[in-house]
Amino acid sequence: MPPFDPPKRLLMGPGPSNVNPKVLEAISRPTIGHLDPRFVELMDEIKELLQYAFQTKNEVTFPVSGPGSAGMELCLINLVEPGDKVVVCINGVFGGRMKQIVERCGGIPIVIEQDWAKAVDPNKLDETLTQNNETKLVAFVHAETSTGAKSDIKTLTQISHQHNCLVIADTVTSLGGIELKIDDWQIDASYSGTQKCISCPPGLSPVTFNQKAIDKIKNRKTLVQSWFMDINLVLGYWGQSSKRTYHHTAPINSLYGLHEALLLLKEECLENAWKRHQQNSELLCKGVEELGLEIFVKEDERLPELVTVTIPKGLDEAKVRSNLLNEHNIEIGAGLGALAGKIWRIGLMGYTSDEKNVKTFLSAFKKSLNY
Amino acid sequence: MPPFDPPKRLLMGPGPSNVNPKVLEAISRPTIGHLDPRFVELMDEIKELLQYAFQTKNEVTFPVSGPGSAGMELCLINLVEPGDKVVVCINGVFGGRMKQIVERCGGIPIVIEQDWAKAVDPNKLDETLTQNNETKLVAFVHAETSTGAKSDIKTLTQISHQHNCLVIADTVTSLGGIELKIDDWQIDASYSGTQKCISCPPGLSPVTFNQKAIDKIKNRKTLVQSWFMDINLVLGYWGQSSKRTYHHTAPINSLYGLHEALLLLKEECLENAWKRHQQNSELLCKGVEELGLEIFVKEDERLPELVTVTIPKGLDEAKVRSNLLNEHNIEIGAGLGALAGKIWRIGLMGYTSDEKNVKTFLSAFKKSLNY
Repeated sequence: MPPFDPPKRLLMGPGPSNVNPKVLEAISRPTIGHLDPRFVELMDEIKELLQYAFQTKNEVTFPVSGPGSAGMELCLINLVEPGDKVVVCINGVFGGRMKQIVERCGGIPIVIEQDWAKAVDPNKLDETLTQNNETKLVAFVHAETSTGAKSDIKTLTQISHQHNCLVIADTVTSLGGIELKIDDWQIDASYSGTQKCISCPPGLSPVTFNQKAIDKIKNRKTLVQSWFMDINLVLGYWGQSSKRTYHHTAPINSLYGLHEALLLLKEECLENAWKRHQQNSELLCKGVEELGLEIFVKEDERLPELVTVTIPKGLDEAKVRSNLLNEHNIEIGAGLGALAGKIWRIGLMGYTSDEKNVKTFLSAFKKSLNY
Repeated sequence: MPPFDPPKRLLMGPGPSNVNPKVLEAISRPTIGHLDPRFVELMDEIKELLQYAFQTKNEVTFPVSGPGSAGMELCLINLVEPGDKVVVCINGVFGGRMKQIVERCGGIPIVIEQDWAKAVDPNKLDETLTQNNETKLVAFVHAETSTGAKSDIKTLTQISHQHNCLVIADTVTSLGGIELKIDDWQIDASYSGTQKCISCPPGLSPVTFNQKAIDKIKNRKTLVQSWFMDINLVLGYWGQSSKRTYHHTAPINSLYGLHEALLLLKEECLENAWKRHQQNSELLCKGVEELGLEIFVKEDERLPELVTVTIPKGLDEAKVRSNLLNEHNIEIGAGLGALAGKIWRIGLMGYTSDEKNVKTFLSAFKKSLNY
């Protein structure tokens, strides 16, 4: 069996995105121990850089040692106690996952189901919370990776707070790609991923909790069901650097990569990264429309970092994707769940979001459509 | 903030161990998608290589997307149903964790507590199972990383089976370092880590389940409490390669590293790796004893990959460790839990287990003791 020699793909699916060679180099630096004083310093720097990326001063801001789904589960199972009513907004695959996790930890999900092409409807949230006045939490997805729709996280959070609910926002595909201001918008808890607009390899999930969220966790009457994900235990390691104690072994080299990627983001500066994502996305949408295709989500609810394209009737969509992959080394994503066969998902995330990549893609896409 | 420049440490603690430069290079290869056909091939190869490392034909053999603690939790929460009696053998920190996880998933732990310097006592297990004849599972640690004691996994498994119990064995620190034969010894489920004798950076947990274990999971009356760790869902991705569907995003680059490390293990061959660990350990123990120190665990229960040394009374043990780290770039481990301040833990795992490293260490250790 020979060593694995991965092809060089242009990653324009729903994540992972292409990783900056500087980040790949950082990941390959020599491993040190997870309690090494130098590593403890690195952890502090990562916290500080994540606070910048999330635009927060939250003390409890760190990367979970697992992919975005682990971050989702960590947020929900720590904040939801058995019997808690949780409004879950479902406008795509990932809202559906939140519901399942709420059920598995004994919470009572109250579901707002909606059209998968659209943002979460603030009016529906307001109505639902008015009808269910004992609700403790509201969970929704900022940037739905399964549909390409962007929800108005600021308004949804305001409405939730008016009804005395805490908010858990999925920012897996928004962090680093579109405007996100945890403190200004008073988002109580959020989880993200590293393999989207941050452009690290997958495997880590940055999370952040404000004091209200931490207070709810500290006042739980029952133990969190997971030992690995119990934030009371995890914070023994990721909490104050003067008192770090062993909980689990952190993924050292992956954290080297995250540190480097966050440094690059800070160097570019968040506002510029958001602008870059927007500009390249507009270029992509224009090009796709010139090919006679339709964008799935209407313009004002469209994610720049993930453009979904309606597949014309009668077209063998899998053939287009495999032609792009095999002839042009370009990966795009298929539809997920109810949207399988109906849309393509074209990602322009992080390091991938580059004018040159848009042009390369459009030229190859045209050929693959006519193949 | 400058890029992180980790020092070059000789990692002789309880893990992570030093990583072969070939593995670090593999990790830095270009990221591809987690549903890329080439990545699906890599997953099949990793399964095959893990089957070799575990010495098993178990179809359900794969790396969990999280560190060893995640693997521990995945095994327990899938196999334990609420109300199940589970005998947990505690002869160190990690047995204690198993107990906590069993409690958190609604199982009833029946604990065998023992001296932390010793292997799990097979007679005690037999007695306990005789007294508790409705026990469904037995959980124990093969190689206790907190004490340096090796348990007789083969005999413990035989006794458990005589009492109609399934076995979950923690092989985090044994896989690749000492004899381990999942199929020959009929171990039903096991989890390991990558940062010990396999010498990858931390972050993955190889697991294996035989058909009896899978049957118990398939016949559960209740849902597994975790969505992220529900093996019924995880196997949609890691199961048959012809039908792979998205569950969570796999840690692509970490898996490149695991593939490379397992190739290196196969190239050396397991039996040679076990022999190497044994020989270097004997050299280390001889040298430590020549310095007038005592090994904590008696010879026939001693782990070669993790040697624990009794700290002489009155010695400032933290000073010795920090001198080793700061003056010689060598990391060794402190005692954990009840053994804090009482022992040092000196690891000779995977790529670190090398005659030259033993000599470098002994020379530096002598200086640090007299510092």
